[in-house]
Amino acid sequence: MPDRPRIHIAPVSEPGLEDAVSRGGGALAPPEDADGVVWINPRDPHGLKDLLTRSSPRWVQLPFAGIESFFAAGVIDPQLTWTCAKGIYGHACAEHALALMLAGSRRLAHHARSRSWEEPGFGSPERRLTGATLLIVGLGGIGRALAHIVEPLGMRVVGTNRSGTDVEGVETHRSTELLELLPHADFVAICAALTEETRNMFSTEEFAAMKSDAWLVNVARGGLVDTDALVHALQEGEIGGAGLDVTDPEPLPEEHPLWSMDAVLITPHVANTWDMAVPELRELVYSNVSRFARGEELLGLVDPSLGY
Amino acid sequence: MPDRPRIHIAPVSEPGLEDAVSRGGGALAPPEDADGVVWINPRDPHGLKDLLTRSSPRWVQLPFAGIESFFAAGVIDPQLTWTCAKGIYGHACAEHALALMLAGSRRLAHHARSRSWEEPGFGSPERRLTGATLLIVGLGGIGRALAHIVEPLGMRVVGTNRSGTDVEGVETHRSTELLELLPHADFVAICAALTEETRNMFSTEEFAAMKSDAWLVNVARGGLVDTDALVHALQEGEIGGAGLDVTDPEPLPEEHPLWSMDAVLITPHVANTWDMAVPELRELVYSNVSRFARGEELLGLVDPSLGY
Repeated sequence: MPDRPRIHIAPVSEPGLEDAVSRGGGALAPPEDADGVVWINPRDPHGLKDLLTRSSPRWVQLPFAGIESFFAAGVIDPQLTWTCAKGIYGHACAEHALALMLAGSRRLAHHARSRSWEEPGFGSPERRLTGATLLIVGLGGIGRALAHIVEPLGMRVVGTNRSGTDVEGVETHRSTELLELLPHADFVAICAALTEETRNMFSTEEFAAMKSDAWLVNVARGGLVDTDALVHALQEGEIGGAGLDVTDPEPLPEEHPLWSMDAVLITPHVANTWDMAVPELRELVYSNVSRFARGEELLGLVDPSLGY
Repeated sequence: MPDRPRIHIAPVSEPGLEDAVSRGGGALAPPEDADGVVWINPRDPHGLKDLLTRSSPRWVQLPFAGIESFFAAGVIDPQLTWTCAKGIYGHACAEHALALMLAGSRRLAHHARSRSWEEPGFGSPERRLTGATLLIVGLGGIGRALAHIVEPLGMRVVGTNRSGTDVEGVETHRSTELLELLPHADFVAICAALTEETRNMFSTEEFAAMKSDAWLVNVARGGLVDTDALVHALQEGEIGGAGLDVTDPEPLPEEHPLWSMDAVLITPHVANTWDMAVPELRELVYSNVSRFARGEELLGLVDPSLGY
């Protein structure tokens, strides 16, 4: 048995995290002695950069799955082992994606803003998910969880990933086929990582390819969508509407045209709140400290060359 | 083989219905010659009453599941065989119930009304359905469908029906145990029929028994809820909020206090729109005409003594 690995939690701890380190076979340590660092503030890459000038860990655990701001800040030294929380928040985010899909199909934003009863008559445009086609763009943790939770709703589920490798329950295609798939989708859920390759993945051409009543959902990263092109597509009726938990820029400025569109619902990046995340993060820290202590492969390994 | 039963469709037909009658082995007929009447306007019991003064069918098919207005109008002659559409719209309504549950857990009404980005911070109150307890009040077509579609979300699903007869995937109790079950539910979905027995089933005592952060969903009938008691419970913070597709009275008047509450989302009785209903109704008419032609038991039989 190796010595207990020395783990530093920063910038502050959360309830249960220190216990997770101990249960995993680690010992808490100050930064200068740390073999591993658990960094739990997803919004402070510079704080971590600063810490790493005073610490020489072999491994760094990041708290969330979307870590492009850590790459942008130049924190991700490929000489170290980096893990992030990819996968573990998939179910929470997928629930939010489903909420935004149903908000679209049932016109919940429109109804929430009504202050009087609109007699629906016989031509009310609400729709069912049953029988509709869902295109999941990105079949990582969120995308797979979304495919799973919509199963009993009887949708046709199509998805894309880089390799086109089959995912259970999903008619899987390569990401490069996106433009051919978009015309068939009633709902498009963006669940991909933001990298230089995927930035503005949804722009003029993609919106033009979508059905005029299709509903776009983004629970991944705002930068995956060209916001000006989205506004244009909505104004021109090229797509039916959008449910956005993430925007570009974020926060979305006041007076931005998206705030006043009837077929747009914006939630302020709450698909996976801190309260939802902490219990999952605790279990991940426990697992990864155990694996680190035993010299096993860690969960959620970051590939610095891919950017996620 | 008996003669082809003579079927009258009224007050007007919908695409595919006449064909469904023919496929089922029936022949279209004027009211005075009809053995069976398919009445497709759910909002006009008096039109049907009028028709029945000129027609003597043995069987009447009603278009929706909630038929209390036909009882109230005195149309339901127990000497005839009555069928309604109970069960067949369950899935569409259950989808709407799920939409309203997620609207509650993800605060969609609040977010839809925001016109600027509210930085969620680390204490944002959105919740996951996973791990929460759902109480389904009424395990007919809607309730069973709801239990089915929430399956992959990992909720604890408790339900009630008159008999307490077990329903798959649901911890089933008798309706009389409602008050003991309410304190444990994070989401309460009303999916029961409206009868004299169930009117105002949710009133002061029931709201007082609920968790202060529980979310009430009603996709059944407005009259199941005592509206004044609901307003009071919301104002006093006895419950967390409500998603209502049905209200009492309906339409809900302008300026009613429910319209301006942050934790209330009202949709104007659109859980099962006409466009969603027609394909299902077509299949039901086909099945019931076939059964009627063969002298078999019909689907969706109404028990006049129970009122549904």
